[in-house]
Amino acid sequence: MNDQARMKSWDTVAVVGVGLIGGSIGLALRERGLARNVVGVGRDKERLGIAEQCGAVTSTTTDWSEGVQDAELIVVCTPVDHVVDHVRQVSQSCQASALITDAGSTKGRICRGIESQPITSGVFVGSHPMAGSHKSGPEHARADLFEGSLTVVTPTERTREEDTEQITLFWKSLGSHVVRTSPEEHDRAVAAISHLPHVVASALAASTSPEHLPLAGTGWRDTTRVAAGDAELWRQILADNRDHVLQSLDNFAKVLTEYREALAADGQTELIKLLEVGKRNRDSLGS
Amino acid sequence: MNDQARMKSWDTVAVVGVGLIGGSIGLALRERGLARNVVGVGRDKERLGIAEQCGAVTSTTTDWSEGVQDAELIVVCTPVDHVVDHVRQVSQSCQASALITDAGSTKGRICRGIESQPITSGVFVGSHPMAGSHKSGPEHARADLFEGSLTVVTPTERTREEDTEQITLFWKSLGSHVVRTSPEEHDRAVAAISHLPHVVASALAASTSPEHLPLAGTGWRDTTRVAAGDAELWRQILADNRDHVLQSLDNFAKVLTEYREALAADGQTELIKLLEVGKRNRDSLGS
Repeated sequence: MNDQARMKSWDTVAVVGVGLIGGSIGLALRERGLARNVVGVGRDKERLGIAEQCGAVTSTTTDWSEGVQDAELIVVCTPVDHVVDHVRQVSQSCQASALITDAGSTKGRICRGIESQPITSGVFVGSHPMAGSHKSGPEHARADLFEGSLTVVTPTERTREEDTEQITLFWKSLGSHVVRTSPEEHDRAVAAISHLPHVVASALAASTSPEHLPLAGTGWRDTTRVAAGDAELWRQILADNRDHVLQSLDNFAKVLTEYREALAADGQTELIKLLEVGKRNRDSLGS
Repeated sequence: MNDQARMKSWDTVAVVGVGLIGGSIGLALRERGLARNVVGVGRDKERLGIAEQCGAVTSTTTDWSEGVQDAELIVVCTPVDHVVDHVRQVSQSCQASALITDAGSTKGRICRGIESQPITSGVFVGSHPMAGSHKSGPEHARADLFEGSLTVVTPTERTREEDTEQITLFWKSLGSHVVRTSPEEHDRAVAAISHLPHVVASALAASTSPEHLPLAGTGWRDTTRVAAGDAELWRQILADNRDHVLQSLDNFAKVLTEYREALAADGQTELIKLLEVGKRNRDSLGS
């Protein structure tokens, strides 16, 4: 039986936190006819209202207990600093059989934190949908955000295979590819492929003198695009994955120093060698 | 009289070097009905053939003397290391009244080099159309490449105002905005806004371990996009503008160190301050 045939629909899914990711999950579930009810759960009534207006959720509530009590699946899409607390909170009101996952950009602290003190009810499996945008908020949600994207699902040694399977199937049903790694492997990899680029883009944007900005073309714009991401969300992510990010930063700084030395010494062979390695890595992914 | 009213058409324009930029100039001139003849001049018959097939030029020749003799305007679009030689070469066969410009990404060495030993015939005014792509070759040329883009025109103290005006009008007629600076001011500015981003993107791509590439999302892709540019072209540009690029690199490295220190010290206030400066600079330009 292939994944398509096994794609199940849910009666009720609760989305806790209706920003870009939560809103897009709701839109995708509804557009694909995968959930009868999508309950938007949050604290900010205006934000919940926008999510409902956008069609991302079928109902909303600021009463978390009421919001999650009927859900078979609960997706916690709040900033990484809050995920552990929010998972604990929903577990106090959800069904014993409820599946709980999250969408946090770091996984070690979250998954180990939840595991260290088992939750009251429901079963947690960590996720990181690597889709997104430098834009945030439910008004930027898109039903196709996960199509062709990659989601990392991070079971631990204690996670039951069938639960990992269900969460994997959930993300696949939204159009995402799924890979599994341990929370720690995930954090090391995203430090290099996502968190380091954010720091580099932000430092590049910050180091640019405003007097030069009028000359900015597609090169500067592309290279700095992610720096437009929400500063507080990114502070949390970087702080949460500090050790791996520092390691990636040091690798990068070492390579940057090689470029500097090749340039300063007018080392044409060295410089072109470095530019070619960069080009080869970039070309391997296409546009 | 506004620029539109003053937009003149040329009888014959010669484009020397029919890559992405040269090809796009030809396509734009033809699509906008601004030139009766666009002569593609180069050394590589196959490349010239592609440019003609794409409709970028109306005729082609590998005989440079024949190619430029009837041209009122000659645009040299060859790699920066060759621009001075190529301008000298076309000046030996062109009309005394011919205007010559280039499309090189550096301007100091080119403009001062040509000025230091006046050319035989024709008048040179340097240009840098800041449009482009990480793709190269006439097959990627686009008639709209310059629309809404920015071109820097770099007269020196010896350039006649009317010649600067003509070259300015030429780029405007292709849809570009135009600013004027000295060749030296240009080089300092593009080191920061274009050459530094290239080095940073390339170093980021080069420092990424291939094992992590399968996880690359839009963040890594955007931040490293320009690293796909032609390595030899970029080696020439960086070497040509070495002093300014080194200065920009050092500014960047200093800011990057501030990020590292804030992160290592868990300096939440410092880190968010840095992320906010980056975001503010990036946001000021829109998506």
